[in-house]
Amino acid sequence: MSSGFFTSRWVPRPGHVHETEGGLARGFRAAGVASGVKADGVKDLGLLVCDADDAVSAARFTRSGVLAAPVVVTKERTDLANLRAVVANSGNANAATGAQGVEDAAATQQAASRVVGVDATQVALGSTGVIGVPLQLDRVLGGLETAHGELRTDGDGDFADAIRTTDRFAKRASLLVELPSGDVRLSAQCKGAGMIQPNFATMLCFVQTDALLDADTANLLLGVTVKRSFDRISVDGQLSTNDTVVLMASGASGVRVEPESEDELKLGEALDALLRQLALQIVADGEGSKRIGRVVVHGEDPEAVERVARTVANSPLVKTALHGGDPNWGRIAQAVGAALLDTAPLPFDIAIEGVTVLADGAGLRFDEAALNAAVGGSEVEYVIALPGEGAETEVFFSDLGHEYVTINADYTT
Amino acid sequence: MSSGFFTSRWVPRPGHVHETEGGLARGFRAAGVASGVKADGVKDLGLLVCDADDAVSAARFTRSGVLAAPVVVTKERTDLANLRAVVANSGNANAATGAQGVEDAAATQQAASRVVGVDATQVALGSTGVIGVPLQLDRVLGGLETAHGELRTDGDGDFADAIRTTDRFAKRASLLVELPSGDVRLSAQCKGAGMIQPNFATMLCFVQTDALLDADTANLLLGVTVKRSFDRISVDGQLSTNDTVVLMASGASGVRVEPESEDELKLGEALDALLRQLALQIVADGEGSKRIGRVVVHGEDPEAVERVARTVANSPLVKTALHGGDPNWGRIAQAVGAALLDTAPLPFDIAIEGVTVLADGAGLRFDEAALNAAVGGSEVEYVIALPGEGAETEVFFSDLGHEYVTINADYTT
Repeated sequence: MSSGFFTSRWVPRPGHVHETEGGLARGFRAAGVASGVKADGVKDLGLLVCDADDAVSAARFTRSGVLAAPVVVTKERTDLANLRAVVANSGNANAATGAQGVEDAAATQQAASRVVGVDATQVALGSTGVIGVPLQLDRVLGGLETAHGELRTDGDGDFADAIRTTDRFAKRASLLVELPSGDVRLSAQCKGAGMIQPNFATMLCFVQTDALLDADTANLLLGVTVKRSFDRISVDGQLSTNDTVVLMASGASGVRVEPESEDELKLGEALDALLRQLALQIVADGEGSKRIGRVVVHGEDPEAVERVARTVANSPLVKTALHGGDPNWGRIAQAVGAALLDTAPLPFDIAIEGVTVLADGAGLRFDEAALNAAVGGSEVEYVIALPGEGAETEVFFSDLGHEYVTINADYTT
Repeated sequence: MSSGFFTSRWVPRPGHVHETEGGLARGFRAAGVASGVKADGVKDLGLLVCDADDAVSAARFTRSGVLAAPVVVTKERTDLANLRAVVANSGNANAATGAQGVEDAAATQQAASRVVGVDATQVALGSTGVIGVPLQLDRVLGGLETAHGELRTDGDGDFADAIRTTDRFAKRASLLVELPSGDVRLSAQCKGAGMIQPNFATMLCFVQTDALLDADTANLLLGVTVKRSFDRISVDGQLSTNDTVVLMASGASGVRVEPESEDELKLGEALDALLRQLALQIVADGEGSKRIGRVVVHGEDPEAVERVARTVANSPLVKTALHGGDPNWGRIAQAVGAALLDTAPLPFDIAIEGVTVLADGAGLRFDEAALNAAVGGSEVEYVIALPGEGAETEVFFSDLGHEYVTINADYTT
């Protein structure tokens, strides 16, 4: 029994969601092989296939102004509502590779179409790794053939391994979800750990379900849950050229999830918990990360609330204090002030782990020993109350320690 | 002969500007004493006085939504065009101290008014140090009396020492400026080194001249030159609650600088070079800093150009690469994409130390050994060309290394 996926106090396991022993949702097969793009025979190429002709899907991508070739090809040359296969590689991001990079991505897509026996418009691509280096297309195509021969219903572990880069641990889950109309499965494979040494950060996540959905429902559920998970985390405030999330539904369970039904609500809750916990795993795997912070901000203006949360989460001062287990509220106050220019005097409150340390903009006396102990755990929560009501948001963030600097500064190119 | 103030290739010494042996511009006296706010008898209280009845002045402050008490009092209870004295302390920022903090700042201002013999509205305040801790008012007031007794025309060194916190080196200059109408002097004392351990970053800068100006000219010159200096630097993207810049003009040289005259232009050039070099000293003194980066961005839209420059300058990936002496253009491309969401495809160029590494969004081949050597120096320049023309900006930034983490995470509160 694989236990302990829902490890964060911020993501309680919903009662109708149960961890299983692994394996993909029904109707899916996957494999992960060593194509030779990475040295030392490490797995670096994953293939995921949905065997249902009437599969539906949905996807989300990075909003970066600099898009990697696999993102361009997937966005522009597929039917995102009808994907049947995913080819994902690590070791080369195929980013900033110009027209050649797009050609190589398109060739990968075409090859997968032939190998798997689906239309090219049904093949999504994902890449992560070094940038600015041409993709070793022959190796990827060779690996694709090999992977096709190794597709298995329990190939999710190999697939997840093949998309890892600096990830210290594999990020995947296999869940059983009890819906009013019957049981369905959710499986997911994810990678992300801040920046990929020595280049880009990338977050990839592939989710499968055997629920029977229409494409609009898949798109709605993915959109809402991505906004509450991968959109709410920050390792170091950077944005990858390659971020990709794909949800595919095989329908193989026969359990139909109608729009606006109780089934949809319960499936959405399960997907929400799944993606939030995966997102927290990415934060926890932030390079050199020791602690996760959660900043909750409420106030009147949604835009201001969002800016404050992001500024606090990305402040190197707040992040080093989190790393050091230091309840340094002055740094949080500084970040709030920097986020809200020309608004002084600003009567706001800060609470750390439930202890109010600043009220109406002025510091309070508090039990320092108790607070010091409270911020020494693996998760630290900051609540910032700006004036007014009606808007609230949260951002999860990693700390900043020596290992981040070591990983990102102390290597030789 | 104090030499070597203009050390950066980015701030050449103007031909009509000469370093002098130190000392304040005529008409000014200063002192720096140990008031006891800091332990160990370290200087922590500076007093600066202008002896000319008709002095003029101008000031600029942090735009943070969280303003320290000395900033509030200086902004709201002085005539910024007619300042005659500055009281500046280190060791306590008097920030986030609520109504008591404002009362303490006002009491300091009143005391200085009595001691120096000027109106309270002519006394500016500056503080830097720990936040959220009540100011030890009795020590500050005692120090003020002592400092008054030690005022000297060459007290600028002591004054500069009194406002240092984590600064590794004193930041000050004494310049002779040849204007068409005669010689004038400029002197300046500055502090700033990224974050003040363990709390706020603060930049304080006090500039004196004996040129004979009207207040509007002083305000114009300070506004333009602050925009090109302290507004263009980033140690770690943070914004202090206490940042303050004050320019005072005694007129003691008798050299009148008329609006829109050649004298005004030449004085402006001198002030510009002075503040830019001081700003670069702050960046160079960034906590643990080994190298200064300069990112120049040009394109069509001023707002986009500014956002790209700030995003690159504050990217922890770019900053760690700078620290490691690594020409990692992929990280710069990542930052550009993150700054300009939803703009792909974005045909832009990146040059590092004059070597174009990315053109039209695709990586180029270049001489890696030569570029590796070029980015190993003390100053590294990045030029980013976005599509279009007409807008250009620059940001100077420090690198991110282990010492930053050590200073900001590894201490005990």
